[in-house]
Amino acid sequence: MRKIIYIDPVGPDGACSEITKYLDCVKSKDTKLEFTCLEKGPKHLEYRYYSALILPDLLDLIKKLEEKEYDAAIIGCFYDPGLYEAKEILERMVVIAPAEASLHIAATLSYKFSILVGRRKWIPQMMENVIKYGFKDRLASFKCLDFAVDEFHKDEKVTLDRMIKKANEAIEYDGAEAIILGCTMNFGFYKELQKFIKVPVIDPTIAAVKYAEFLIDIRDLMGWYTSKKFAFETPYDLKMV
Amino acid sequence: MRKIIYIDPVGPDGACSEITKYLDCVKSKDTKLEFTCLEKGPKHLEYRYYSALILPDLLDLIKKLEEKEYDAAIIGCFYDPGLYEAKEILERMVVIAPAEASLHIAATLSYKFSILVGRRKWIPQMMENVIKYGFKDRLASFKCLDFAVDEFHKDEKVTLDRMIKKANEAIEYDGAEAIILGCTMNFGFYKELQKFIKVPVIDPTIAAVKYAEFLIDIRDLMGWYTSKKFAFETPYDLKMV
Amino acid sequence: MRKIIYIDPVGPDGACSEITKYLDCVKSKDTKLEFTCLEKGPKHLEYRYYSALILPDLLDLIKKLEEKEYDAAIIGCFYDPGLYEAKEILERMVVIAPAEASLHIAATLSYKFSILVGRRKWIPQMMENVIKYGFKDRLASFKCLDFAVDEFHKDEKVTLDRMIKKANEAIEYDGAEAIILGCTMNFGFYKELQKFIKVPVIDPTIAAVKYAEFLIDIRDLMGWYTSKKFAFETPYDLKMV
Amino acid sequence: MRKIIYIDPVGPDGACSEITKYLDCVKSKDTKLEFTCLEKGPKHLEYRYYSALILPDLLDLIKKLEEKEYDAAIIGCFYDPGLYEAKEILERMVVIAPAEASLHIAATLSYKFSILVGRRKWIPQMMENVIKYGFKDRLASFKCLDFAVDEFHKDEKVTLDRMIKKANEAIEYDGAEAIILGCTMNFGFYKELQKFIKVPVIDPTIAAVKYAEFLIDIRDLMGWYTSKKFAFETPYDLKMV
Amino acid sequence: MRKIIYIDPVGPDGACSEITKYLDCVKSKDTKLEFTCLEKGPKHLEYRYYSALILPDLLDLIKKLEEKEYDAAIIGCFYDPGLYEAKEILERMVVIAPAEASLHIAATLSYKFSILVGRRKWIPQMMENVIKYGFKDRLASFKCLDFAVDEFHKDEKVTLDRMIKKANEAIEYDGAEAIILGCTMNFGFYKELQKFIKVPVIDPTIAAVKYAEFLIDIRDLMGWYTSKKFAFETPYDLKMV
Amino acid sequence: MRKIIYIDPVGPDGACSEITKYLDCVKSKDTKLEFTCLEKGPKHLEYRYYSALILPDLLDLIKKLEEKEYDAAIIGCFYDPGLYEAKEILERMVVIAPAEASLHIAATLSYKFSILVGRRKWIPQMMENVIKYGFKDRLASFKCLDFAVDEFHKDEKVTLDRMIKKANEAIEYDGAEAIILGCTMNFGFYKELQKFIKVPVIDPTIAAVKYAEFLIDIRDLMGWYTSKKFAFETPYDLKMV
Repeated sequence: MRKIIYIDPVGPDGACSEITKYLDCVKSKDTKLEFTCLEKGPKHLEYRYYSALILPDLLDLIKKLEEKEYDAAIIGCFYDPGLYEAKEILERMVVIAPAEASLHIAATLSYKFSILVGRRKWIPQMMENVIKYGFKDRLASFKCLDFAVDEFHKDEKVTLDRMIKKANEAIEYDGAEAIILGCTMNFGFYKELQKFIKVPVIDPTIAAVKYAEFLIDIRDLMGWYTSKKFAFETPYDLKMV
Repeated sequence: MRKIIYIDPVGPDGACSEITKYLDCVKSKDTKLEFTCLEKGPKHLEYRYYSALILPDLLDLIKKLEEKEYDAAIIGCFYDPGLYEAKEILERMVVIAPAEASLHIAATLSYKFSILVGRRKWIPQMMENVIKYGFKDRLASFKCLDFAVDEFHKDEKVTLDRMIKKANEAIEYDGAEAIILGCTMNFGFYKELQKFIKVPVIDPTIAAVKYAEFLIDIRDLMGWYTSKKFAFETPYDLKMV
Repeated sequence: MRKIIYIDPVGPDGACSEITKYLDCVKSKDTKLEFTCLEKGPKHLEYRYYSALILPDLLDLIKKLEEKEYDAAIIGCFYDPGLYEAKEILERMVVIAPAEASLHIAATLSYKFSILVGRRKWIPQMMENVIKYGFKDRLASFKCLDFAVDEFHKDEKVTLDRMIKKANEAIEYDGAEAIILGCTMNFGFYKELQKFIKVPVIDPTIAAVKYAEFLIDIRDLMGWYTSKKFAFETPYDLKMV
Repeated sequence: MRKIIYIDPVGPDGACSEITKYLDCVKSKDTKLEFTCLEKGPKHLEYRYYSALILPDLLDLIKKLEEKEYDAAIIGCFYDPGLYEAKEILERMVVIAPAEASLHIAATLSYKFSILVGRRKWIPQMMENVIKYGFKDRLASFKCLDFAVDEFHKDEKVTLDRMIKKANEAIEYDGAEAIILGCTMNFGFYKELQKFIKVPVIDPTIAAVKYAEFLIDIRDLMGWYTSKKFAFETPYDLKMV
Repeated sequence: MRKIIYIDPVGPDGACSEITKYLDCVKSKDTKLEFTCLEKGPKHLEYRYYSALILPDLLDLIKKLEEKEYDAAIIGCFYDPGLYEAKEILERMVVIAPAEASLHIAATLSYKFSILVGRRKWIPQMMENVIKYGFKDRLASFKCLDFAVDEFHKDEKVTLDRMIKKANEAIEYDGAEAIILGCTMNFGFYKELQKFIKVPVIDPTIAAVKYAEFLIDIRDLMGWYTSKKFAFETPYDLKMV
Repeated sequence: MRKIIYIDPVGPDGACSEITKYLDCVKSKDTKLEFTCLEKGPKHLEYRYYSALILPDLLDLIKKLEEKEYDAAIIGCFYDPGLYEAKEILERMVVIAPAEASLHIAATLSYKFSILVGRRKWIPQMMENVIKYGFKDRLASFKCLDFAVDEFHKDEKVTLDRMIKKANEAIEYDGAEAIILGCTMNFGFYKELQKFIKVPVIDPTIAAVKYAEFLIDIRDLMGWYTSKKFAFETPYDLKMV
């Protein structure tokens, strides 16, 4: 039985525990999925600054989850905050984040894909990840929905219509063959959108759960786990502060 | 129960059915794994020409396997011959090949990885795939073992020693943090090699099986399947010849 | 006297022998140009699958043409199917294809060029070639005419008008300074189009013939021929199947 | 009078206040240079994890320094931790870090340059910055000195010899025309090294001070300051946690 | 006291000495700024040919200015004509040009920036510099104002309106966060434009002066000067013609 | 009958008219090949400065050659000095230079090629051309022979031995499949070298002649000539100085 925990890397006010119910429908039957969030923190991470603020608590939490024998932790934000830092300090537990998972899936299912973002502000930081993970030449475009993080579920019909419009533009003008929803708060839309635009629509929270299960399995079966050489070498002292 | 079939894309003389036994140890308990090869064909695919020769039979076979309700077919050669052609003609069955699967895994577990090849001749063709799949900036190097395809298992001690030497050079001089074995005939070595060099060693046949299971699951659960828009649009007539 | 043969890599039904008459006007007086097609095959190669189907017959034909002392074979499709495979198995005869020839010419005559394609579907496969041949940074854009392969000559006035419109857009919005016609079935249009848009318009079939003559000459005079080291090393046994 | 503050982004135990004395010799006479460090923190930032730990305190400090009317803050670590986060939250004060400053200078003074690092572990994280700042094609190589952060000043003669050896290798084999010292703890070596190897040797702490003065001047004279559009848009609420 | 000379690399008819008055307002109080132009030459350098024509006289002048103890020469054209040639022949005097200076500043103040050009003709030549200096991935776009060099100051209101329109398009559609004015004859507009579009607007002549001061200072203080190894190695004989 | 003129872009002292005799053996029987040099100039162009000095005279000469009804001019230096400037001012005559011609040929005959240079100093300037022409990803390496321009023919046996050694290193360690001789003064060596190393060895002067013939033919037959749009737009006044 795989034990996976979804971390909403925000404070209790921003945390959205209903995501776990949503993800329960897609997890493997051999997976136990839990949910947690930070004890304190901002309501969302739209700014680099907010990501920075939660990093120590997030990494502290992740380290403790490893001690509690979780198999994998999901960092539930499409900026993948703290992902590389977490890979560094972990030695057994898998860690994954929505953008990394979604990009690998989209690049496998299509030649070019687009990412729907809420605000233009998000693009530079996400582009850094697209480049870092290696998918720059597979990205067709970013398309902006002009929604803040907390607006996606205000009127879901409006949101869906905007998504359809922008996804179709990505297909028509940028050659996109798949769509990634660029925010974990986009949960609940992929199925409808997929029906309308007829190309794969990757929900990043689901992508993270399924990729986490995959990474746990290859760790347990073949010992394939984050390389601890160079980039993700573990610090010799996690208590040095 | 997932039904996966491993295709050794060579003729019966070159086919290596023992790979299935090897892979049986790592497949999920919910996976049924079968093996097949081509009715006729070369013993190996070291040349582009040989890949070309088997393409029509391979694609014909793959199309028939889809009709027989297989969930996924693995094209068992690290050149991934026919992978994009197969994605084009399939509409339900998953198709995966060792290089694509291995590169996604290595890029997730490390920042830079190297690929061990048998002969220098292989590098340009494999480099095309590395670029095509998007991982050029993550590749540390190719390292050449100076073995032909059919020599890896002649004296496995010699092969392992050569692999250790070349993998260590890749780590030391090129900054590799993970190693991909660049030939399906490298089966059986990853575990020992991993023990010696202490970084993840990706066996491409195993990578393909596990990635196939993953792709089947996301297809069945979310309908995430090869986009049929543009690059992999299905021909309207598969019988037109 | 150079002996060049133009291969329409389709079956007799799709083959367009009038292309030879068209090309006769531009070949050198020291060139003898013949035409052939496959014994069987699809009517066009719009899909990767169709290209795969004809590969063995195409390569078999090419090998036989080398034995018959042809100086060069042209693979008459803008996807350049089988070009690298043919370079591998040949040891004396030149082989060239329309995209490779056209890209070298366009990159010499302009800083940025665009390629007119019939359908969006063609772009990813052609983009792979643009990248492989090294011209990614010289490509201004692909422009789509929304014509299938067999529609270009239905109403040539309509086709020409569409070409003018799209070529002008490429110049105006994408900075194109030359235009490549991205299909061998675009024969007959370059001269008119060139007159209208006032930048070089590369007809890929003509490009292939002239580049073939050039490659024959440098082979005969200086022995400059496809390198048989690494990428295009000849298989030791062409009959091994 | 410009007011610049050098932040050693570590705790008091790791902080090296003698750097200010060192920098006093190169600052402009119109510059007042102060020094500070964090109230608590690790002794060095060799790991991403350590950088993450100090981020909230560092950004809090930086924000306060802006309120105290400093003209510029220097984040004194060659990983440039928190640089982009600080650009986001600041609206008047300049912020600069050693890698960004050094890369701009080296790229102006040479066509290709190399970076000397202490340990191989540092390379992937620094490479991310080289790519992010746009200098990938100007980098000749990283060269590793095999020293930890706290070992550079143990025996300075040994350190200098190692630097000369590695810098000469970078020039000889990688075509480097300038050298960047890849750690703020390399202070004190540039002048000697420059004398020996006869190419510019960029000391990153000095680079940061001089670039800070430059950025202050263009801010004051022309209003050229970090763009607050998109990437570095200021969060509407810095107290939201 | 720094002695800087601004060279308008055109003949007396085209030279615009009022630029010095303009630049006097932004130079440091420790800087003495002079102006010169060529004895003969074209009125502008819109064509590569014109740049070529003035190169010998420009380099001859620059060499003489070094002998006259100037600290820096500015080559006053956004094509940066002769910049790398001048770096080669100089051994003490700093040389800088507007594009190099502007790109370093824009890349420091923003993640993506756009360049306003007068005519489409300019783009390929400027793109070469953007690539050469390393900033290709930071460039959002070129935007064309449809003005020749001598038209910017005909009706400054019209010019400013065009600039606002095109800069806003660059921000809105291409994600630009800063704007570079791509011609030295754009002097006088940056301040107004900056007020309207609310992102940094880099005037290239000012950028060159301030960057020159910066480069003089790091030369004088640390001996950081153009590397004379490889790319900018000084010819052993400047009189050999 | 094609009329081609080879310009040795140096003064009479440096000019090497024996190159024409050498080239006479490879030109087409329909080609008349002449030789010229500049009235004054340096003996070689190893420095950017020397190239700059000869540019006005070179372009003036080229313009006059066009008026004299030459079909093509070859700029006989591997730095391709003035090539793009010449493309700009010409409207009928073809202009070609050795590097552009050699790179197109090598990229057609091999997947990866190396360039032999005389001195390390040459590499940055030649790399700019490799990037500009689009062949960066096809270049395996530069290899340095440690010869100045005027030393290649001092002891040709020594030169050949050095070439064999360096070419073999390029093949063995960098994966080169073809070799370009990176200096027009390397004439006379390709045939012997080719025999020894068994991969194509491109002599740049010959490459230029044959490519010139090719470009003349496609100009005459199809009107395919340097695009006069944008990059190579002709200045409206060549006498404006």
